[in-house]
Amino acid sequence: MKIAVIGSGSTYTPELVEGLIAHGSELGLKSLYLMDINSERLRVVGGLVGRMVAKAGNSFRVELTESRREAVAGADFVLTQLRVGGQQARHTDTILCLEENLIGQETTGPAGFAKALRTIPVMLDICKDMRELAPNAWLINFTNPSGIITEAILKYGGVRGIGLCNIPIGIQTRIAQQFQVDHEAVDLEYVGLNHLAWVRKIWVNGQDVSAQVLSSEQYQAANIPELSLPKEFLGALGMVPNSYLRYFYLTDEMLRDLKAREKTRAQQVMEIEAALLEKYEDSHLADKPEELSKRGGAHYSTAAVSLIRSIVGNAEKHHIVNVQNNGAIVDLPPEAVIEVNASVDSRGAHPLAVGRLEPEIRGLIQHVKAYEELTVEAAVHSDYSKALLALANNPLVDSVNKAKRLLDRFIEVHKLPLE
Amino acid sequence: MKIAVIGSGSTYTPELVEGLIAHGSELGLKSLYLMDINSERLRVVGGLVGRMVAKAGNSFRVELTESRREAVAGADFVLTQLRVGGQQARHTDTILCLEENLIGQETTGPAGFAKALRTIPVMLDICKDMRELAPNAWLINFTNPSGIITEAILKYGGVRGIGLCNIPIGIQTRIAQQFQVDHEAVDLEYVGLNHLAWVRKIWVNGQDVSAQVLSSEQYQAANIPELSLPKEFLGALGMVPNSYLRYFYLTDEMLRDLKAREKTRAQQVMEIEAALLEKYEDSHLADKPEELSKRGGAHYSTAAVSLIRSIVGNAEKHHIVNVQNNGAIVDLPPEAVIEVNASVDSRGAHPLAVGRLEPEIRGLIQHVKAYEELTVEAAVHSDYSKALLALANNPLVDSVNKAKRLLDRFIEVHKLPLE
Amino acid sequence: MKIAVIGSGSTYTPELVEGLIAHGSELGLKSLYLMDINSERLRVVGGLVGRMVAKAGNSFRVELTESRREAVAGADFVLTQLRVGGQQARHTDTILCLEENLIGQETTGPAGFAKALRTIPVMLDICKDMRELAPNAWLINFTNPSGIITEAILKYGGVRGIGLCNIPIGIQTRIAQQFQVDHEAVDLEYVGLNHLAWVRKIWVNGQDVSAQVLSSEQYQAANIPELSLPKEFLGALGMVPNSYLRYFYLTDEMLRDLKAREKTRAQQVMEIEAALLEKYEDSHLADKPEELSKRGGAHYSTAAVSLIRSIVGNAEKHHIVNVQNNGAIVDLPPEAVIEVNASVDSRGAHPLAVGRLEPEIRGLIQHVKAYEELTVEAAVHSDYSKALLALANNPLVDSVNKAKRLLDRFIEVHKLPLE
Amino acid sequence: MKIAVIGSGSTYTPELVEGLIAHGSELGLKSLYLMDINSERLRVVGGLVGRMVAKAGNSFRVELTESRREAVAGADFVLTQLRVGGQQARHTDTILCLEENLIGQETTGPAGFAKALRTIPVMLDICKDMRELAPNAWLINFTNPSGIITEAILKYGGVRGIGLCNIPIGIQTRIAQQFQVDHEAVDLEYVGLNHLAWVRKIWVNGQDVSAQVLSSEQYQAANIPELSLPKEFLGALGMVPNSYLRYFYLTDEMLRDLKAREKTRAQQVMEIEAALLEKYEDSHLADKPEELSKRGGAHYSTAAVSLIRSIVGNAEKHHIVNVQNNGAIVDLPPEAVIEVNASVDSRGAHPLAVGRLEPEIRGLIQHVKAYEELTVEAAVHSDYSKALLALANNPLVDSVNKAKRLLDRFIEVHKLPLE
Repeated sequence: MKIAVIGSGSTYTPELVEGLIAHGSELGLKSLYLMDINSERLRVVGGLVGRMVAKAGNSFRVELTESRREAVAGADFVLTQLRVGGQQARHTDTILCLEENLIGQETTGPAGFAKALRTIPVMLDICKDMRELAPNAWLINFTNPSGIITEAILKYGGVRGIGLCNIPIGIQTRIAQQFQVDHEAVDLEYVGLNHLAWVRKIWVNGQDVSAQVLSSEQYQAANIPELSLPKEFLGALGMVPNSYLRYFYLTDEMLRDLKAREKTRAQQVMEIEAALLEKYEDSHLADKPEELSKRGGAHYSTAAVSLIRSIVGNAEKHHIVNVQNNGAIVDLPPEAVIEVNASVDSRGAHPLAVGRLEPEIRGLIQHVKAYEELTVEAAVHSDYSKALLALANNPLVDSVNKAKRLLDRFIEVHKLPLE
Repeated sequence: MKIAVIGSGSTYTPELVEGLIAHGSELGLKSLYLMDINSERLRVVGGLVGRMVAKAGNSFRVELTESRREAVAGADFVLTQLRVGGQQARHTDTILCLEENLIGQETTGPAGFAKALRTIPVMLDICKDMRELAPNAWLINFTNPSGIITEAILKYGGVRGIGLCNIPIGIQTRIAQQFQVDHEAVDLEYVGLNHLAWVRKIWVNGQDVSAQVLSSEQYQAANIPELSLPKEFLGALGMVPNSYLRYFYLTDEMLRDLKAREKTRAQQVMEIEAALLEKYEDSHLADKPEELSKRGGAHYSTAAVSLIRSIVGNAEKHHIVNVQNNGAIVDLPPEAVIEVNASVDSRGAHPLAVGRLEPEIRGLIQHVKAYEELTVEAAVHSDYSKALLALANNPLVDSVNKAKRLLDRFIEVHKLPLE
Repeated sequence: MKIAVIGSGSTYTPELVEGLIAHGSELGLKSLYLMDINSERLRVVGGLVGRMVAKAGNSFRVELTESRREAVAGADFVLTQLRVGGQQARHTDTILCLEENLIGQETTGPAGFAKALRTIPVMLDICKDMRELAPNAWLINFTNPSGIITEAILKYGGVRGIGLCNIPIGIQTRIAQQFQVDHEAVDLEYVGLNHLAWVRKIWVNGQDVSAQVLSSEQYQAANIPELSLPKEFLGALGMVPNSYLRYFYLTDEMLRDLKAREKTRAQQVMEIEAALLEKYEDSHLADKPEELSKRGGAHYSTAAVSLIRSIVGNAEKHHIVNVQNNGAIVDLPPEAVIEVNASVDSRGAHPLAVGRLEPEIRGLIQHVKAYEELTVEAAVHSDYSKALLALANNPLVDSVNKAKRLLDRFIEVHKLPLE
Repeated sequence: MKIAVIGSGSTYTPELVEGLIAHGSELGLKSLYLMDINSERLRVVGGLVGRMVAKAGNSFRVELTESRREAVAGADFVLTQLRVGGQQARHTDTILCLEENLIGQETTGPAGFAKALRTIPVMLDICKDMRELAPNAWLINFTNPSGIITEAILKYGGVRGIGLCNIPIGIQTRIAQQFQVDHEAVDLEYVGLNHLAWVRKIWVNGQDVSAQVLSSEQYQAANIPELSLPKEFLGALGMVPNSYLRYFYLTDEMLRDLKAREKTRAQQVMEIEAALLEKYEDSHLADKPEELSKRGGAHYSTAAVSLIRSIVGNAEKHHIVNVQNNGAIVDLPPEAVIEVNASVDSRGAHPLAVGRLEPEIRGLIQHVKAYEELTVEAAVHSDYSKALLALANNPLVDSVNKAKRLLDRFIEVHKLPLE
């Protein structure tokens, strides 16, 4: 059993490794390959990982490599957590969007579009390596925009892949805390696309607690009152929206808020990461540091490791993941990638049939899915026209002129090979 | 053969009557009932109409009435061109929207939503009268938002109805002028919803001239440069967008433009109408005055009368109208009302199968259709929650908070009975 | 304007020519190319055609040729009425089926399957010629099984094609006689596949006469009582079934009837044709002889010529033809070929949206369509496995063992290149 | 925890009880209500059940009752295994069908149609009791035709229900024996309707063994050679058909076989049951007797008890059951009941998305589903016309005349209240 992590220089990696240490023997894990093109970060993060694994008794081997082919060869699982262009590219995209008076949002927004264009060619290269060197491996994608990337992989990559996001498990955890139960006692009827999803129903230990959650004080209140949704709207909706929906539900307010900030999220993350990496350098440190929680991506380890456990153990357990629709949502094309409950066994993730969508969520989901489909085509075929149509169809972009200017700037600063 | 016109006080009416005079004997028209609840406008407009018909030889009878039941009883066609609340309500809606920094747009925008909520109950009352007093009559709806109103009629009215818009015939006429042919020589492959439609292909005398039209100077230029679409976008799209799409494609620019205007469109129309009505009072006038062309609604007469001619004559001719989808657009619910080419005969308007939509137009159409579906439900059931969900799903409304505030204001000023 | 007729040696040809003579000048017809690989029949039939055209004043030129490429080159319309293997192959197929205690039925039955396998490769060759030599021509297919052949053409031929059948116009004519009106006064709501269709509604001069037709004596009676459908069934169905449906609705009775006959239909036709051809040899004959009516295929000329007139004249008239579904029937794949009302103009045949099918006809249509889809794949790819799956899925074949034996015999006697 | 078994006089019941004894404490089972309207059989079967439970230590209470309401009141699970009219009605139906030269087949055939008409009203009465007396209970239906009955329950019963069949678990068991593993090590990709399903893929311990199973001797051979499918067909199909498909794949051969038998299956079962009941009377017997295996219905206990365990334990395990489609099979209506893999937890059975069906199985499934849909409507609304349309649409009925005669005989002998 071999696991390869592409983009291991991420400061997340110790969190993932913590999970692998806890469950490595159950999984039969023999070797963990950490791969990154940034040798310095790989050395620092890899150093901490090595100390963590050693402290835990060295139940599996850790290898550091800058060769993607070496990492992938013979792997059973390839985890992708790479970030093409790094936080600097994210910062640039955000600024370019704000200059157009637009929210960047590196997943569902125009910054996410730019990230998809940069990332999809790299992901398809990884798929090519996998087809050659690890044809039976699973690709577990954590790279954002996770839904779009996964759609590109499943349509054009020729490998078995599942897209992962830490938001669903975050919702489960929050509700588990509210009801003081373990997060595995919480079941969600979850439907939509990555970062564009709704929880239709919530059960705790098999009891439907949806109404209770929707009407609870702590659910309805937000720190910044104007960034919370009117309770009449939540009542009418009768579902819990994924927190990223605030970019669509409160576009105007969120834009003001983002413009008022002194630093972009990318800048904040760069500072957090610098501090973290300094910490990781400490040769006495052999545990995931507390500060990592500020980085975002909480529960990533739990989500990824429990998914791998279900595949390896043929467990048939439910996971909320990004998979090919295949009819599960009647109102979307069968080939589209969606984020829903899926039953995971050794053959993969099988989405549970959802049926028809309520009109109150159907339209936005269909709109964004059409944008995503165009984005995949633009990236895979390096097609300028498709890219322009895609960006103009993103609901957060309120002008085709802006779409045109932004696309041209993205091409310029990231040297995208669109034609 | 009896035709009833509901909302005859409209200054449009002489245009319609001009068409009926030209084709009345072909249609076998015996009596024309002009109905309005505004007795003064009915008197003035009706006076001019009477003189027009007399001048033309009195081939049919003209009756003025304030009784809708009298107008409808035994009619073969009921034409609805009413405006609940008049231009004053339109002005109010526009201002309320602008105060929220939103485009009002009385068809596809939030002002159109308010208009639908006011209008649908009245339209369903007319349907009730028709079921009782003229069960075989055709309802030809010209009242905006024409697509939403027609969907309400076809889902809940229990009558035979067709929705009409003057934009498609306007596009045909413009292209006919460009190619110096009669407008009947122009065929359009037209697809979408009312005021949210695209021309996929254009033929003149059976020749495909789509590429020629798309690349022509006069097509691409607009009076106000920033309100024109980038030519790269039009090239990528490869279709001619309905002019109302500029509210979606250039939301930001249009909003600035609207805010910069001194008067709302409603105020302009009120002034035009006052001048027109003064003119109509002139007992020497027995023709449609030239000034009516400023009012908008050009080609209304041509569209309505030619549609009636196709029904009466079982002609099987193509008309671009609002009809029940029935599968013509695979990506929309069969029950949805769409605006497409339909073959019209004595049994009604049969949409020609369109097939699947291109992703570049699919998402926005599906999004707006979900909004429209919710709006119909809200109006028919006087349901506050559905109304809030509808308005929050309108792509022109960039905040659920704004949706909530606007809805509450609409309810207040128009005394809408939502619960 | 040039028309090419492939398979002109058919004894039908004079009927077609009669129609072309009547409407040739309206169509602007300049030359008619009659092509057949059977030089003797071409000489005989062509001789009569020449005399017919001369008698009518030689308004267009008639050319006889054995070269398909010469016939097709520069044509505006290519009409296909060929029969690969002739009536002898039909006779053989019928006998092979009867030996297995199966109805052959050269359209929807296993004999039709064999005919499709023989014919599709030839039709795709014709399409190849057309793409090269007449890329803007229309292919009007009259060759049976018309629906399957047309699906092969539209999926794999790369040309513009429409499939034609004389049954719908036959129903119209019969009803026109019943109501003593012209057949153009009869409108049908017609839905299904070629030879597997139902008339949902019937209108005469715009009046719905469906109930009247369904309950009429002459509709319900048949010459052979046991071959008529129970009136309770027709009442429950509420539609008029295409006469070919008796093979599915009365499989057992039809099989007994066919087995009791002394001659196959192919043998009868061979005798009729021999007599007809003898007649055609008569150099004094310059008209379509009366006896042609026994041949079947009545109204073929009317159907074909009126279809061509609608295309040439951009008439937008309704014709019941075989076209790509494109969503018109919600319950079938968009790519399937169906037989429904279509509006025909210079761009082709646009099916009118039908919507969802009633379950009482839906299942059989879907079943036969799946069989047809497999048959097309088998023929296009010369695929034995697909052919076996196809034939085993034909509802008239009551055993997979029989399907296997029959397929092997078809391959043997017709030297089919399946693998 | 209370379980009610409706139709407990069945000789199957001891098998079910055996499973409940084994897992009763895990389920928290407190009381088992055995209900039947046949007091004599209830006494005999109930006597044996009482002795079995006593021998096992009386971990739950057994109550015998003729009152359905008493049995249902407060139950957590209601198991239905009733047979309206008993084996005598089955025998009658079979004979009536054979007299028309038709296969009866009490699930997918015309005898199954008659059984559905008798049974659905009773099942909806049970649902009524459940809505009143046990609104949170699960209805586990084992009564045939299980798919049709379950569709009636889910469309019209207003209760939570799952339909069960012992065939899928039988296939798993057979393959488990072939590979010498436990049946839980076998996973099937199973798709279709009850008794009309195919195994697309087979895995043993996560390894795809489909090709191996399909090509194995023991799979391809049958005791009666002419009742086996040609190996070329199985190769072309590439799936394992449910054994009941031989009625459709080998209609002719099966009919000959059934006609040649001396006794109907119903008569055989009556003899087996008489012998079993005599055995059950033996007051020394406290175990399920060996002879029960001849009765059919093997694995029933395993299937039912493991399903209940997954619900109670919120296990998310896969079970092949009859559930509402909800999009899982793209080619069938969302409301249809299908038999597929479903993930079962405390909220019910969630079908895994299947996607589009291959044409080689699609047509027959759609055909039978249309028949089933009509049968449900006929039974629920006591509608003669729907019943006639249903039976005429059953692919095993080769004549509408036969359908009419059979239906009239079913009505007569079973006093069905159709109008």
